[in-house]
Amino acid sequence: MKKQNKRTDILDIGTELISTNGFNATGIDSVLKKAGVPKGSFYYYFGSKEDFGFAIIDKFAEEYDLKLTSYFGDTSVSPLQRMRNYMEHTIEHLAENKCKRGCLIGNLGQELADQNERFRARLESIFHSWQNVFSSCLKDAQEQGEIAQGIDCDVMAEFILSGWEGAILRAKVMQSPHSLRIFIDTLFSSILVR
Amino acid sequence: MKKQNKRTDILDIGTELISTNGFNATGIDSVLKKAGVPKGSFYYYFGSKEDFGFAIIDKFAEEYDLKLTSYFGDTSVSPLQRMRNYMEHTIEHLAENKCKRGCLIGNLGQELADQNERFRARLESIFHSWQNVFSSCLKDAQEQGEIAQGIDCDVMAEFILSGWEGAILRAKVMQSPHSLRIFIDTLFSSILVR
Repeated sequence: MKKQNKRTDILDIGTELISTNGFNATGIDSVLKKAGVPKGSFYYYFGSKEDFGFAIIDKFAEEYDLKLTSYFGDTSVSPLQRMRNYMEHTIEHLAENKCKRGCLIGNLGQELADQNERFRARLESIFHSWQNVFSSCLKDAQEQGEIAQGIDCDVMAEFILSGWEGAILRAKVMQSPHSLRIFIDTLFSSILVR
Repeated sequence: MKKQNKRTDILDIGTELISTNGFNATGIDSVLKKAGVPKGSFYYYFGSKEDFGFAIIDKFAEEYDLKLTSYFGDTSVSPLQRMRNYMEHTIEHLAENKCKRGCLIGNLGQELADQNERFRARLESIFHSWQNVFSSCLKDAQEQGEIAQGIDCDVMAEFILSGWEGAILRAKVMQSPHSLRIFIDTLFSSILVR
């Protein structure tokens, strides 16, 4: 049990450092030092730095899925309101820290897609799963008459996901949630309409 | 003159390596080796790796401005068609190489915004200048009755820029221009309308 906790500590600290500095620029040594783990024991927990990266991605994706489920599975509000609640929460969360860090999956996709095919494929599969969450929500919204019947929900979900990731990127560079606010307002006032 | 050419060579090779591997993971040595320049002479051309990074960004931004001017200054077509031509050209250009590399400014923004305030501010100023190009084009489109009078062109330009950057990011991770196609089609069929 203690070993499991230590592994989790290493992953949490790794996530923090990689979110700020990127995967390549984050040294295993600095992670272990911050976690208070002796250098030599890294390979007790992970087979390689790449395995460590995958463990970080998997943990993040699992936790993010819980977050998505809590918003998109909230049947006490309408489908469109679920999406809006998720986005409003994300803006608040990002704005708390001047939009630093951005999205871990977007960051790693930007950094690693060209460098490592296994990372690229895993990151793309996560994007695709998020897109499916959006698409399913849009289909529910369509069934309930919240959005026009003519909208192709799969296409729109892909549009929303890339627009959302782009707004997170711009927010990080601008150090302001302004582009995220514009994204949400434009989406719900001009695009996702009846 | 020869020295200027060598400096340009170093910048071009640096741009290529940084586009693929990121700024932190690109060693000065590998750039110089590829450029056929002795190690010691780097500081003849650049004060530091940071200065080198700024020179790459500035050169990219200057060249990109020429590209933008060639599309957005083309008064032989309507304002909206100028924007569409620019985007269609960019899709073609990115698709030629399976959308690898993405956008240098987006890549560096993602990587460096949290790490280096000078880089962040410079990258944000470039995003802002691109946004102004979009905004000016939208205002012309509005004057000519191509888009609704109710559209706030500054807001819409920010929405378009972040959406576009996000679609480039997704294209890189997907290794497909699919999200860029969806972005253009959705933009011109559902958003930039009368």
